[in-house]
Amino acid sequence: MGQPSQAREKLLNTAIELMSARSYADVGVQELCEHAAVKKGSFYHFFPSKRDLALAALDRQWEVVQREVLERAFDEQVPPLKRLERCFELFYDHHCGVKAQTGRVLGCPFGNLAGELSTQDEGIRLRVVRIFNGLASYIERALRDAVKAGEVPEMDTSTAAQAVVAYLEGIMLLAKATNEPGLIKQLGQSSIRGLVAGMAAPRTPPERKRRAVGE
Amino acid sequence: MGQPSQAREKLLNTAIELMSARSYADVGVQELCEHAAVKKGSFYHFFPSKRDLALAALDRQWEVVQREVLERAFDEQVPPLKRLERCFELFYDHHCGVKAQTGRVLGCPFGNLAGELSTQDEGIRLRVVRIFNGLASYIERALRDAVKAGEVPEMDTSTAAQAVVAYLEGIMLLAKATNEPGLIKQLGQSSIRGLVAGMAAPRTPPERKRRAVGE
Repeated sequence: MGQPSQAREKLLNTAIELMSARSYADVGVQELCEHAAVKKGSFYHFFPSKRDLALAALDRQWEVVQREVLERAFDEQVPPLKRLERCFELFYDHHCGVKAQTGRVLGCPFGNLAGELSTQDEGIRLRVVRIFNGLASYIERALRDAVKAGEVPEMDTSTAAQAVVAYLEGIMLLAKATNEPGLIKQLGQSSIRGLVAGMAAPRTPPERKRRAVGE
Repeated sequence: MGQPSQAREKLLNTAIELMSARSYADVGVQELCEHAAVKKGSFYHFFPSKRDLALAALDRQWEVVQREVLERAFDEQVPPLKRLERCFELFYDHHCGVKAQTGRVLGCPFGNLAGELSTQDEGIRLRVVRIFNGLASYIERALRDAVKAGEVPEMDTSTAAQAVVAYLEGIMLLAKATNEPGLIKQLGQSSIRGLVAGMAAPRTPPERKRRAVGE
């Protein structure tokens, strides 16, 4: 098992490093092999194509995010809404670390691939959607606990969880564009509670009375 | 001026069509010329490189978004927070139209390029940041009016505007990943008021008392 599985591991790590730093399209099989010091034959032994390597890299990155961010942030010992804030704080810490290492905020690897490839590769699109749904599950559990604990009013926790995923992904995209990890902390802290609390609001929007005619 | 400026226009429209549908990296100069029925010499007469065409395409798309979405949504005759809701509604309408035409939600062209190229092309990154700032300006004006009108409490309208841009970009990314334009309407309607209202909250977060020791 020694050599071959080391080669697979090296390819996976190289794909994560290079594709996160640039893009899927910008990194070719030749460069991946050279950077990982793995022969092309070995590449195709483990991965039928670059796309298969990218799918394996997505799975690996999802495992890491769950272990290093989500399992820690969504600890059930922590008050429910505080878990959401911790999630943004831990992503902030992570992106600060990445910037210290690479000079760059690289954004969310799942969001990056969703943006680049959703219209081009159905397999990658569906894998990313599954990961987004996995992320939403952590958030929804915290929201259900927040409702039970009376921290927030009754709400459609499934939609609210999607709203938080969208907010988190948008923040990571802005942090990447501006190369400012501080945005993740600042925007997470200042509005996540409002975003969640607002999910209960649509039942009585303040302008509803003005459009009563159209109802 | 007939022929040459027509060629430039055709190249611009082709770049917008093909890059929005796929990605920057996936569309080459050769294909752009063929699709636009423009000779390569003509391409390089107008644009020193694909990157320059992409920059011009960004400017053009920003003009269109301002004219067709932002100027209409942020009409000062409309109550301030209602303008924000209209912004999400008009983006929803736009993406429904795109999906009807192409079968796909293509996401935000600015967010797409930010995700793909921010670490790779400083010129494109800065142009997209300028566009995000332009979008934030429309939102911030509405928020300042909302504070004046008493629709929301006093807040840091600049940070709140960035939060709304992040939320909007994240929603368009999720809509692209799931190929569901409905998300733009649903998530916009259900939480934009909460997100904004929440920006005033951090001054008195409910858990502040519990951590008074650390202050």
